[in-house]
Amino acid sequence: MFSLTVRRHFMIAHSLPREAFGPAQALHGATFVAEVTFRRRALNQNAIVLDIGEAGDIVDGVLAGLNYRNLDEHPDFEGKLSTSEALAEYIAAAVASRIREGNDGAALSGLDVTLRETPDAWASCSLDFAAGEPGPQ
Amino acid sequence: MFSLTVRRHFMIAHSLPREAFGPAQALHGATFVAEVTFRRRALNQNAIVLDIGEAGDIVDGVLAGLNYRNLDEHPDFEGKLSTSEALAEYIAAAVASRIREGNDGAALSGLDVTLRETPDAWASCSLDFAAGEPGPQ
Amino acid sequence: MFSLTVRRHFMIAHSLPREAFGPAQALHGATFVAEVTFRRRALNQNAIVLDIGEAGDIVDGVLAGLNYRNLDEHPDFEGKLSTSEALAEYIAAAVASRIREGNDGAALSGLDVTLRETPDAWASCSLDFAAGEPGPQ
Amino acid sequence: MFSLTVRRHFMIAHSLPREAFGPAQALHGATFVAEVTFRRRALNQNAIVLDIGEAGDIVDGVLAGLNYRNLDEHPDFEGKLSTSEALAEYIAAAVASRIREGNDGAALSGLDVTLRETPDAWASCSLDFAAGEPGPQ
Amino acid sequence: MFSLTVRRHFMIAHSLPREAFGPAQALHGATFVAEVTFRRRALNQNAIVLDIGEAGDIVDGVLAGLNYRNLDEHPDFEGKLSTSEALAEYIAAAVASRIREGNDGAALSGLDVTLRETPDAWASCSLDFAAGEPGPQ
Amino acid sequence: MFSLTVRRHFMIAHSLPREAFGPAQALHGATFVAEVTFRRRALNQNAIVLDIGEAGDIVDGVLAGLNYRNLDEHPDFEGKLSTSEALAEYIAAAVASRIREGNDGAALSGLDVTLRETPDAWASCSLDFAAGEPGPQ
Repeated sequence: MFSLTVRRHFMIAHSLPREAFGPAQALHGATFVAEVTFRRRALNQNAIVLDIGEAGDIVDGVLAGLNYRNLDEHPDFEGKLSTSEALAEYIAAAVASRIREGNDGAALSGLDVTLRETPDAWASCSLDFAAGEPGPQ
Repeated sequence: MFSLTVRRHFMIAHSLPREAFGPAQALHGATFVAEVTFRRRALNQNAIVLDIGEAGDIVDGVLAGLNYRNLDEHPDFEGKLSTSEALAEYIAAAVASRIREGNDGAALSGLDVTLRETPDAWASCSLDFAAGEPGPQ
Repeated sequence: MFSLTVRRHFMIAHSLPREAFGPAQALHGATFVAEVTFRRRALNQNAIVLDIGEAGDIVDGVLAGLNYRNLDEHPDFEGKLSTSEALAEYIAAAVASRIREGNDGAALSGLDVTLRETPDAWASCSLDFAAGEPGPQ
Repeated sequence: MFSLTVRRHFMIAHSLPREAFGPAQALHGATFVAEVTFRRRALNQNAIVLDIGEAGDIVDGVLAGLNYRNLDEHPDFEGKLSTSEALAEYIAAAVASRIREGNDGAALSGLDVTLRETPDAWASCSLDFAAGEPGPQ
Repeated sequence: MFSLTVRRHFMIAHSLPREAFGPAQALHGATFVAEVTFRRRALNQNAIVLDIGEAGDIVDGVLAGLNYRNLDEHPDFEGKLSTSEALAEYIAAAVASRIREGNDGAALSGLDVTLRETPDAWASCSLDFAAGEPGPQ
Repeated sequence: MFSLTVRRHFMIAHSLPREAFGPAQALHGATFVAEVTFRRRALNQNAIVLDIGEAGDIVDGVLAGLNYRNLDEHPDFEGKLSTSEALAEYIAAAVASRIREGNDGAALSGLDVTLRETPDAWASCSLDFAAGEPGPQ
């Protein structure tokens, strides 16, 4: 099993308006450091999992829709909680959708998105394409 | 699959009194940076794996019993080697035991404890609750 | 010359409403990792720069006024830009003010505040008490 | 499940002479930070996965054959692309081969090699010995 | 005193052909993580040291001339040793030269370039413009 | 101004037996990550601050006297508090003493020792040889 990871970051404002979130109910924000891992059982003919430039472009494309935004007013999060876990799932689904169009995407077996919100806390979402979770086709 | 990780640290003295451990047979110590990961197949109704405050409290509670201690005199390690791997297992079991009492604990599918003892070495213990390893019930 | 540094973090929303700030004019947010360094020419009678618990409490006290806030509505930043540099200066001044009250504060020669806003960018503010910059008296 | 990881680094020159690699077709180089993880289902009689000194020696031995080399002229990469993924696989296979000779090697269930080439990109290769992938016997 | 730092990286091949450099006499390579710090006594009218986009562009422009290159064949290093210290000085001088043209450059009091070549070793070069070292005019 | 830094680590047990140290009065321990910086105004004829192998050997030699030790029983700390600050000063003085014997030592203008005891706390000691602080002669 092989994997390639690219790391990026994005900065957002948001609130988590439920009592369970305590002080995070107030409008605040975060720098999320995103690590996106592409998994593949065997390397392609160029001895890689995926072109690293293509991988970076895919992630940049997805994060551009979030960076410098107030998620409380983002249409994709209307009526939804933008927790770190939910954001990781959103990014994973969006990356999976975009890799369908690439040459190598169909060969990927899964991907992982880790979002680091502070040095002391992070959340991840993993998609396993072989298990029928949403991915490239 | 989702996960949430909280990071903490604790500082202990100990020795590893078997010839195989070379210079670590002497009384020395370590700062252990502990990363505790909670895994869950689907998010709860608050779009999270576990309340991050609750997760931190559980880990803090377990580590409070180790921090600023000499493990050579700690009752839980009497007659046992307090290697990084053994400490990771001890912490994983203690965290698993505490999450049984929480509302969300029963939904967790596993947890991972990584203990970083230097920038160049770390050990992990993973529990898979679905596989019958000790966990919440 | 000696120094002691404590690291904390806080999460805020803000905007930088001038054309020069490009996309950062929009309401967004950041996790700021704050490193606060206390400097002293000679150690005190306990062979330290400052009690690390006291240092942490001072920094925690200052950051509590910022954490989980929207700085656009924070009275201390009314009519002011909350850039990383300005925030570093604000924190440095507030820490300097609080250490005046401590036993060891008068002996400090300066302090530095570094705010890391992404893995790729950070800003610092240094105060040199001997040079007449605002500090403990 | 337990694991032990040791971290090392090595510095090489190489080129990736196919059009798909863009600017990396030119002779350039990298510092690779290598994290080698040894996995085992149960700890041995010393409450460890593997002697950490032995683990480090194995990894050092493998990396010594790569460090300060131009991989374009390295016999093991003749006619092969020395991508990060290919290097991770090469190191994983070499480590697996060397642990066959150790006392504890036969008990390992797998190993992972992660190579960090920049702060923003890394590749991994995982071998699962139980699944019949090349490993200790 | 204020500062702003931007971090980037570049990947090069080179050799250090003198006996004193031991194994580094051979052609090898490195990933250099570059931290470029801009220093200024007082903030400008936008409450910053320097526009962070401009700072990043300046550093990117300088590093573009080094990235994916074999420094043994780079005209700027002909007959010179491309040690980490020498590279830090080269980058500091090039950045200083480029900031002369910016609006804010004249107000800078100095800059620092740190090049991290492995997790365990780094070199820095600092220029103090007030002390007459080469800088903006 | 130039500098070269080498990073190492060591693991010790100790206690801080004064009431002011709270829970750290008990026997505990730490992993100290040591960053030792050598400063010099101009580079030597090999375009370096100091041979990095020599720098590492000097630091290794000093830390070998501390690693895997209980500082409460170390003769150099008899009757002294082994705080992070005191340890940084001890290491700085020992490194300064050893560089006197090296060829390049006399040209150094100072050195800095930073000891990271947790991800959230570190202490430093700086020696400025030009200012008459103990150093190479």
